Amino acid sequence: MDFRSDNVTGACPEVMTALAAANAGSVSSYGDDDLTKGLTRRFQEIFETDRLVAFPVATGTAANSLALAQLTPPFGAVWCHANAHIEEDECGAPEFYTGGAKLVLLGGEHGRIDAADLAARLKAYPFGVEHHVQPGAVSLTQATESGTAYRPDDIAAIAEVCRKYRLGLHVDGARFANALAHLNCSAADLTWKAGVDVLSFGATKNGALAAEALVFFRPELATDFVYRRKRAGHLFSKMRFLSAQLDGYLDDGVWLRNARHANAMAARLAAGLAKLPGVSLAHPVEANEVFVTLPEAAIVALEAKGFRFHRWGGAGATTIRLVTAFNTEEKAVDAMVGAAGKVLA
Amino acid sequence: MDFRSDNVTGACPEVMTALAAANAGSVSSYGDDDLTKGLTRRFQEIFETDRLVAFPVATGTAANSLALAQLTPPFGAVWCHANAHIEEDECGAPEFYTGGAKLVLLGGEHGRIDAADLAARLKAYPFGVEHHVQPGAVSLTQATESGTAYRPDDIAAIAEVCRKYRLGLHVDGARFANALAHLNCSAADLTWKAGVDVLSFGATKNGALAAEALVFFRPELATDFVYRRKRAGHLFSKMRFLSAQLDGYLDDGVWLRNARHANAMAARLAAGLAKLPGVSLAHPVEANEVFVTLPEAAIVALEAKGFRFHRWGGAGATTIRLVTAFNTEEKAVDAMVGAAGKVLA
Amino acid sequence: MDFRSDNVTGACPEVMTALAAANAGSVSSYGDDDLTKGLTRRFQEIFETDRLVAFPVATGTAANSLALAQLTPPFGAVWCHANAHIEEDECGAPEFYTGGAKLVLLGGEHGRIDAADLAARLKAYPFGVEHHVQPGAVSLTQATESGTAYRPDDIAAIAEVCRKYRLGLHVDGARFANALAHLNCSAADLTWKAGVDVLSFGATKNGALAAEALVFFRPELATDFVYRRKRAGHLFSKMRFLSAQLDGYLDDGVWLRNARHANAMAARLAAGLAKLPGVSLAHPVEANEVFVTLPEAAIVALEAKGFRFHRWGGAGATTIRLVTAFNTEEKAVDAMVGAAGKVLA
Amino acid sequence: MDFRSDNVTGACPEVMTALAAANAGSVSSYGDDDLTKGLTRRFQEIFETDRLVAFPVATGTAANSLALAQLTPPFGAVWCHANAHIEEDECGAPEFYTGGAKLVLLGGEHGRIDAADLAARLKAYPFGVEHHVQPGAVSLTQATESGTAYRPDDIAAIAEVCRKYRLGLHVDGARFANALAHLNCSAADLTWKAGVDVLSFGATKNGALAAEALVFFRPELATDFVYRRKRAGHLFSKMRFLSAQLDGYLDDGVWLRNARHANAMAARLAAGLAKLPGVSLAHPVEANEVFVTLPEAAIVALEAKGFRFHRWGGAGATTIRLVTAFNTEEKAVDAMVGAAGKVLA
Repeated sequence: MDFRSDNVTGACPEVMTALAAANAGSVSSYGDDDLTKGLTRRFQEIFETDRLVAFPVATGTAANSLALAQLTPPFGAVWCHANAHIEEDECGAPEFYTGGAKLVLLGGEHGRIDAADLAARLKAYPFGVEHHVQPGAVSLTQATESGTAYRPDDIAAIAEVCRKYRLGLHVDGARFANALAHLNCSAADLTWKAGVDVLSFGATKNGALAAEALVFFRPELATDFVYRRKRAGHLFSKMRFLSAQLDGYLDDGVWLRNARHANAMAARLAAGLAKLPGVSLAHPVEANEVFVTLPEAAIVALEAKGFRFHRWGGAGATTIRLVTAFNTEEKAVDAMVGAAGKVLA
Repeated sequence: MDFRSDNVTGACPEVMTALAAANAGSVSSYGDDDLTKGLTRRFQEIFETDRLVAFPVATGTAANSLALAQLTPPFGAVWCHANAHIEEDECGAPEFYTGGAKLVLLGGEHGRIDAADLAARLKAYPFGVEHHVQPGAVSLTQATESGTAYRPDDIAAIAEVCRKYRLGLHVDGARFANALAHLNCSAADLTWKAGVDVLSFGATKNGALAAEALVFFRPELATDFVYRRKRAGHLFSKMRFLSAQLDGYLDDGVWLRNARHANAMAARLAAGLAKLPGVSLAHPVEANEVFVTLPEAAIVALEAKGFRFHRWGGAGATTIRLVTAFNTEEKAVDAMVGAAGKVLA
Repeated sequence: MDFRSDNVTGACPEVMTALAAANAGSVSSYGDDDLTKGLTRRFQEIFETDRLVAFPVATGTAANSLALAQLTPPFGAVWCHANAHIEEDECGAPEFYTGGAKLVLLGGEHGRIDAADLAARLKAYPFGVEHHVQPGAVSLTQATESGTAYRPDDIAAIAEVCRKYRLGLHVDGARFANALAHLNCSAADLTWKAGVDVLSFGATKNGALAAEALVFFRPELATDFVYRRKRAGHLFSKMRFLSAQLDGYLDDGVWLRNARHANAMAARLAAGLAKLPGVSLAHPVEANEVFVTLPEAAIVALEAKGFRFHRWGGAGATTIRLVTAFNTEEKAVDAMVGAAGKVLA
Repeated sequence: MDFRSDNVTGACPEVMTALAAANAGSVSSYGDDDLTKGLTRRFQEIFETDRLVAFPVATGTAANSLALAQLTPPFGAVWCHANAHIEEDECGAPEFYTGGAKLVLLGGEHGRIDAADLAARLKAYPFGVEHHVQPGAVSLTQATESGTAYRPDDIAAIAEVCRKYRLGLHVDGARFANALAHLNCSAADLTWKAGVDVLSFGATKNGALAAEALVFFRPELATDFVYRRKRAGHLFSKMRFLSAQLDGYLDDGVWLRNARHANAMAARLAAGLAKLPGVSLAHPVEANEVFVTLPEAAIVALEAKGFRFHRWGGAGATTIRLVTAFNTEEKAVDAMVGAAGKVLA
């Protein structure tokens, strides 16, 4: 019973099948293959717009950093939540790719930054003064690091601030599918219609082996992208294998089905745990992550029973994170809830 | 009949099988899985030494650039052949990863740099003078961009120069297996015993989907590697899928069998073509690449018949490169030779 | 009556004289002149140790960034106060020079970070985990951006934390002379004896035209410095002119005399203003800067009378910063106090 | 008798006077002073165009690197002569400032690149192909490292190639005044009228202490310049002292007078030496540098007599470089010629 992360999973069957199918034949390398060339069209359909270009990359860190490097000059700044993955978990990748831009940190409950807070900070910012890094982009995480989702109007409000100050709006969508499944809106509503410029469209956590797509909703922002990708070592020679994963992931709504399942398991887990005495949810459950606070003794007892999860907030914290995935079984969820009930009794 | 490159191939069956097998179960992410943890031991066996550490990455450009960044400071220089992949085909990746080091170019017949030439250049170099970038590493390509191989004593001579001037010695082994199969020596003889410090051990071109290993024969050179890999976006969350490819590739000598086959097909192709009137080999064939010069009309005629290959040396050149691979069929080779015979007749 | 900054001043007479004297004759360039070669010895005398090396540079930003680049790898982090000059006023220079390291911000009253706070943050830090930038250095400002000074034992406490976690300790001493003059201790006590590794020794604000020295108290930390300086364009061909400024600045205690005067003028200003109704000091005055909070109407009235100063804390703030310098006249201070008395009456 | 370089000199009297004059009073810092604000106008007069902006910096390396960073993306390339200062003598500064762009080297007699050669190279270049760095700029040195000058029509021919391929044209004018004085054309003819985009206008070697101007003839190319300068530590707080040097240098034609004198001394030196038996000029003398080849014994004998100069081409070479300056005395030249005559007799 492993709730550590959605990246402890393998790939879903549809992706594995697509990968195997892509293995046949002699095919042009470096993305000049049919699968890769068809990707932009596929994303255009899903996002209901002709105005996008999409590129496959293998990791979320690469997707995020390449996106930010397109939006922010070396002397620039990216505004993000203090707990953003790009700030806390990428070992300075955004700084590396941008050539030394700075991440400026915002607070915000449940992992979400707030448009009004952003607007106030930017209003006071010394734009155009050479002593200070110049804001280039805002980056959101969807779903957030706290397992919550930005609604379309949350994003639209932030996007309005971005437009006012001419900042690009990037979304780290490592769990975009989970947020979308939760909100039950269209992919278009949650992105370009709300003002998103670039999306790191995650697939790895939700069923792929190692595949993400970088989706530019304003193609002019992608002008230099291919050079940056290449010199970062992220242009794959046998690109078909990246594209095939995305293909299998997008076919027949696999991606949303996977996400809905993971979300349902998280909701079931949250509902079960929240009823128990001494347990409280640290954040609303709006995707596939459950953050619960419970007594230290209960955490230790659950670990001893073989349940696997991470503590959140560092050593000694009594909040744990439980992550469900496309392949989480109901019985695993119920076992966790049952065990928690026993140790808390 | 596609001789454009060995990267137009898919993956070999053994690698696909290993990949599928790795898909089972819940596994620690980011390389803390058994397959990845076992990689160093596997490479120690193959290279017959306990003194190495190995790390999987997905592309050759990433492997090369990460290696060079470990060996060379930002104010440093890497000495390499003027036709090296790191110079010509990586869009400045070494410069990006090192933080702006310079590649210094050497000549050399058939893609090989010469130890005496290197020694002469370094003897005259202003070491320790702050106006000039400081030599940090030498990088060889094995097999070379001209399809030739450095023999162990070629490498040993170069390594001796490196040691004298305290430079690291890197080998870009995108086609290391092909060189090794050709030379019929041990992997140890061709690397650390000859003085190689770091090897980009290629697998992608020879049967993997997207997998290389960075092998440090002096583990102390790898100290910072994991941070550099992570911030470059090359730490895969589901690392098992990279490691599984390498595992399948190394099992039961698949890698050498694949390479031997590709080499044999190249030799057959070269032998067949060299006999034809008006055809000459531009370089010795010591791996899986054949460079032949032939009349312009013959090139055009072969293209018209559907044979695929690249011209070498730019538009208008009459040298073509033919690359064979682990899955090149004898009948394809014979068809090419046959067709060439006809168009030249 | 200009209290905007100590950099609105020209140079002090002793520095101008030294500069003119240095103009004679033909002299080796790039620092191979007697003035430059003598600098390390001069600093060794002032800091009472043979264990230092000193290099002239022209700006504080260059000094700070070069120091941090010596202490911190590209995947590293520098811990500093949230209001540090390196964070707020250098347009990302530390990120540029280090190749993308991150500044991690600490709070702390009156511009000073606190050793216990630093220790707590570092104790919880995931050292050695590749997902996170690795702490490389702590940087203090002396005197601080709030015009306060770290005492030797403040620094020693911070240095102890640095040693525990193997971090370098850098001091941005743009106003080091002012802090030292205030504390009335030895330069040694305030630096290497307390555990400082590298000092940006400022001269520009306190009487030079454009000259700082980078002083390494552990010479082994300076190994690569000359290459970094050169490639940043900070190796001056006619280096004698930088060194001459430092020479004139250090001769006969000019630097401390200048600083004592500036401090005395700040103290006089603070004492005079603090007595006035509706005026409060925002920070203790421990160098040559006075931060006072006073009614908006009074600020406007003083500006209208031609007094020049900056508001602190952004537009609309009612705290102003008044900076005195080596050449501030007593009558200017008294005029300011007198005028403030009138507008507040 | 020191002919090692024009940077062994101090500053000329007019510059020292201007510097002293600039020391008076309280003046806005960071370039918001009258001297600095007037610089662009001064350069507009000298270059006879309203279409330029000029910025002072302290070193030639900073000027060159900042210019190239404005013209070339990190994945870009700068084409220059193999002996260019930016390639050989700046310790990788262009790579540092551009974020890792590559210098591509061209040959060319007497230090000059050739428009036809450049055109041929660019015609064959794989523009738009992501595997390769993308040409961003061409950089010339004026006068060249061989002491020769590009004539306006040489530059115009190169500029035409640049325009065709949309490359920026930069001129490293460390000795621009010397080239201009030699050619006896207008500053406009030698720059923007011939197609130059950005000029590093040198003053240090020809009479300043440490001052250059970066002159953008297409102001839109300077958009981000101020941020790059600041984060490189090249924004001086007491900027008036940089600007004053340039002011004194430009006043009353001091700069051209200085250059004409230096050139005349070089011409006299060349004429005197060329007549001697066993002496030959390695390059035409078109500025203030004389490259002469003479017997080893003569070189040793001249060194023994106390004449100072550098060998050119490394240890053992028998070509020496003699550089004259604004303050070289006729009698020094004659002494050198006389001594050479004796040792060669």
